[in-house]
Amino acid sequence: MAFKESPIERTLLYIEPGPVLLVATNDGRRNNVMTVSWSISLDFMQHFAICTGPWNYSFNILLEQREAVIAVPAAEMAKTVVQIGDISGAQTDKFDKFGLTALPASEVGAPLIDEAIANIECRVVDYNEQYGLIVFEALKLWEKKGKCDRRLLHARGDGTFTADGESMNLRRYMKDEIPPGL
Amino acid sequence: MAFKESPIERTLLYIEPGPVLLVATNDGRRNNVMTVSWSISLDFMQHFAICTGPWNYSFNILLEQREAVIAVPAAEMAKTVVQIGDISGAQTDKFDKFGLTALPASEVGAPLIDEAIANIECRVVDYNEQYGLIVFEALKLWEKKGKCDRRLLHARGDGTFTADGESMNLRRYMKDEIPPGL
Repeated sequence: MAFKESPIERTLLYIEPGPVLLVATNDGRRNNVMTVSWSISLDFMQHFAICTGPWNYSFNILLEQREAVIAVPAAEMAKTVVQIGDISGAQTDKFDKFGLTALPASEVGAPLIDEAIANIECRVVDYNEQYGLIVFEALKLWEKKGKCDRRLLHARGDGTFTADGESMNLRRYMKDEIPPGL
Repeated sequence: MAFKESPIERTLLYIEPGPVLLVATNDGRRNNVMTVSWSISLDFMQHFAICTGPWNYSFNILLEQREAVIAVPAAEMAKTVVQIGDISGAQTDKFDKFGLTALPASEVGAPLIDEAIANIECRVVDYNEQYGLIVFEALKLWEKKGKCDRRLLHARGDGTFTADGESMNLRRYMKDEIPPGL
């Protein structure tokens, strides 16, 4: 397959920028996937959270299975990502409908998504009901090999989206704030 | 001044995309500002959170004053934004050091930042110690008028940053997920 395992610290590179994410699950019978754009890094030990709730079909699966794959779509996948977010997995096999390729993960029952640029195998370590936060711990990171669109996709909340543009290296202005491994 | 008050629902446009944010405070004596890139939208009633902790000088000010201005920098301000994040306000007047212009807010004692593209006057409504989350409620939104760089800045976590690039309108693929007012 087109993915290689990467140092787990690199998970931050896909969460901190605030991109749209796909959450892949398996309820023991079949795969499902939802789109989220409310997420946050919580520490440098690969914990992060998404904000969701019981109105999403994947919500109960996440709490029951206690695991997921967070797949990171490139910007060129934007239309599909939005459509994944617009229908429920209750009656629809979204992998089939949107032509997504499920690959076996190594630590969890949820699938990797071959069309993503990165896949993060995760354990669900907490649920904060007050704010609807599901807290993940990243177990394994897979990054796509070779040449491909690596622009992250950002949702503005009004149905418009932006892709990563100009890239800037400002490491020289950060004395000691870059975490080990990055 | 170059800002106009905007419908509060538009706050989401500056939080959901996951950009780097500036947190402006006033401790009753002087202004301070810090840079954060770990944030999350929590609902459609203008609640959102940042992840921070007592190692940041602004942390205690936020908990004591229970208010702040979240200022949104454009990408062209990247170098200053990083430098703001690299030193503590304990001994330094960062408004002075970085040539930031403080403008009076209308609902809070913290200042608006004239160099930002948007300023969100906020109340601190909660602090979740387990995850270091400070929860804000937006009270008033100011957006910069006129022509300017409106690209948001995203931190990757390793000292590299991206500016917003290509913009995509995908509203036609979202049936009923666009919140009122956006």
